[in-house]
Amino acid sequence: MSSPTLTIDLQALIANWRALDAMTTCETAAVVKADAYGLGLGRVSKALAGAGVRHFFVAQANEGVELRKVLGPGPRISVFSGHMAGDAGLLGANDLTPMLNSVDQMLRHVESLPGHRFGIQLDTGMNRLGMEPGEWVALRDIAVAQKPVLVMSHLACGDQPDHPMNAHQLNSFKEMSGELDVPLSLSATAGILLGKDYHFSLTRPGIGLYGGLPFGAAQPVVTLDVPVIQIRELEPGETVGYGNTWVATRPSRIATLGAGYADGLIRAMGGGARVFADDVACPLVGRVSMDMLGVDVTELTEDPTHMSILGPQQSVDDLAREAGTIGYEILTSLGPRYARLYRE
Amino acid sequence: MSSPTLTIDLQALIANWRALDAMTTCETAAVVKADAYGLGLGRVSKALAGAGVRHFFVAQANEGVELRKVLGPGPRISVFSGHMAGDAGLLGANDLTPMLNSVDQMLRHVESLPGHRFGIQLDTGMNRLGMEPGEWVALRDIAVAQKPVLVMSHLACGDQPDHPMNAHQLNSFKEMSGELDVPLSLSATAGILLGKDYHFSLTRPGIGLYGGLPFGAAQPVVTLDVPVIQIRELEPGETVGYGNTWVATRPSRIATLGAGYADGLIRAMGGGARVFADDVACPLVGRVSMDMLGVDVTELTEDPTHMSILGPQQSVDDLAREAGTIGYEILTSLGPRYARLYRE
Repeated sequence: MSSPTLTIDLQALIANWRALDAMTTCETAAVVKADAYGLGLGRVSKALAGAGVRHFFVAQANEGVELRKVLGPGPRISVFSGHMAGDAGLLGANDLTPMLNSVDQMLRHVESLPGHRFGIQLDTGMNRLGMEPGEWVALRDIAVAQKPVLVMSHLACGDQPDHPMNAHQLNSFKEMSGELDVPLSLSATAGILLGKDYHFSLTRPGIGLYGGLPFGAAQPVVTLDVPVIQIRELEPGETVGYGNTWVATRPSRIATLGAGYADGLIRAMGGGARVFADDVACPLVGRVSMDMLGVDVTELTEDPTHMSILGPQQSVDDLAREAGTIGYEILTSLGPRYARLYRE
Repeated sequence: MSSPTLTIDLQALIANWRALDAMTTCETAAVVKADAYGLGLGRVSKALAGAGVRHFFVAQANEGVELRKVLGPGPRISVFSGHMAGDAGLLGANDLTPMLNSVDQMLRHVESLPGHRFGIQLDTGMNRLGMEPGEWVALRDIAVAQKPVLVMSHLACGDQPDHPMNAHQLNSFKEMSGELDVPLSLSATAGILLGKDYHFSLTRPGIGLYGGLPFGAAQPVVTLDVPVIQIRELEPGETVGYGNTWVATRPSRIATLGAGYADGLIRAMGGGARVFADDVACPLVGRVSMDMLGVDVTELTEDPTHMSILGPQQSVDDLAREAGTIGYEILTSLGPRYARLYRE
């Protein structure tokens, strides 16, 4: 098989959802935006629904349309970007629940889809999505009369448990939502780990389901194996790849692997990144190309036919560190060119 | 329309191919690997075939299978990764021409697909793909007897015209291919620009077709417009986004836009990157989120409904510079979530 292969362990995914669910006494939803963090909206969502998830979150209405096709009627699908101009038809026809972010969105919603289910997103300090405290004060009574099904907000620094922003946002959320008789939600994965003050009626884990930090106890979900195209011998002084950036300092054996930055192996990954032959770590050499990687396999006693980039030896967060980013971006960048195997 | 919109100008693509073709007196192929550098294999390849391209290159056999479906019989489809284990069926059934990279690949090819068209890739110093000089000396007579349809190599430093590696690879290619009665190819976009010594029988432009450097005279092919989800007022001292990394130093208006790193807006893009409302540049603020960007729109006199990230004001290479990478990675990272409009 000449394609690199991405294996997605749906049992690990379900185990992660269950583990996060067991940390709270409230309902646990699942965030499946961005093609389920790059792992495949259809297979991931069906597996989670089969495990009992009844509430899914996406970023955009178009994603909700795809998800409704996958899930059929029944499970709730909520849309973080709310009710944007032109979305009424999609929201209405696919039973999607927008999280309204502003007075503008509220007006648009009640005018174009009166009686259609909605939630409200409040901004508690991240200044990204949601109604501001002042806006909310003015709108609150009118909004509540329309019977929102959820009032939510989002933490900006949840992955830093000691950051004062967490308590600040928690207090702000409590003040803004106090005395409402509406289900409340503040936390994604990071907030679940902050403890029960942060749980409210519903949590919305995303990255933790897919095996990423800050859920350190997550089971790894993704394995990535890449075929070796060829292996060559280099003399000291010979160079590898674009720009001649790597120079052999000893007689070396260099493998060329068939995946590159078009497959989400981010170009910023430097020589610190490693690729594995069984348990032996081999360093990347030279620049990552669009479709290929160079790897120094001098230390191996046998020529590998495939090597592992993600798996038990190296997590998405390990790889992210080498690329100067976060596990989330490694996942969402994985790209369409892999053969995808789902382990049920 | 709540989706971000990627507009691909197929006339500009064709004009770029014609401009590169006009720089040489030899045949000009087109490289369409990685989903035509992220712009859509089907539409891009059909447009190029309509403009007269008869030879296409992909990285992997699987891509060739897709491309054959698009093009039908006729145009030649060559595969850079050569004949890998398990690919004989795909290569045979889809009339794909592997560029054989090693003695192993040559043996595999003549054993499993005797008489099937192939080319040979030589390594002239990049140490990534292709037969080494020593390997080639041993194999050359046997290989030539099998009638390869192309002998090719690839430049490692072609985008640096003064780099001594170019002349070194040119000489090495001439030595290795001397006196062969076989069509020869050394150059992709960068090599075309190095002048006619580098052109041989066939050139293989990729990035230049799609409007990227080093083809500075390329017409821009891609326009990217992203909807504004909401705009909020900030007081000095308020923060934006994950980790509170941006702090307002004046009363500010911040727009939240509906695209993020899951859409290829690379997280490494810092505050140097800009987003445009018509011709007014507005700086990014805070970290890029998975599905969203924050932009400081304080200087605008009118609230925008959409803003432009790629277009006449900002090229893929401009954006790449802000993300510490190259235009190629911006293109191949664009992701599946855009509405794609093709301008014919």
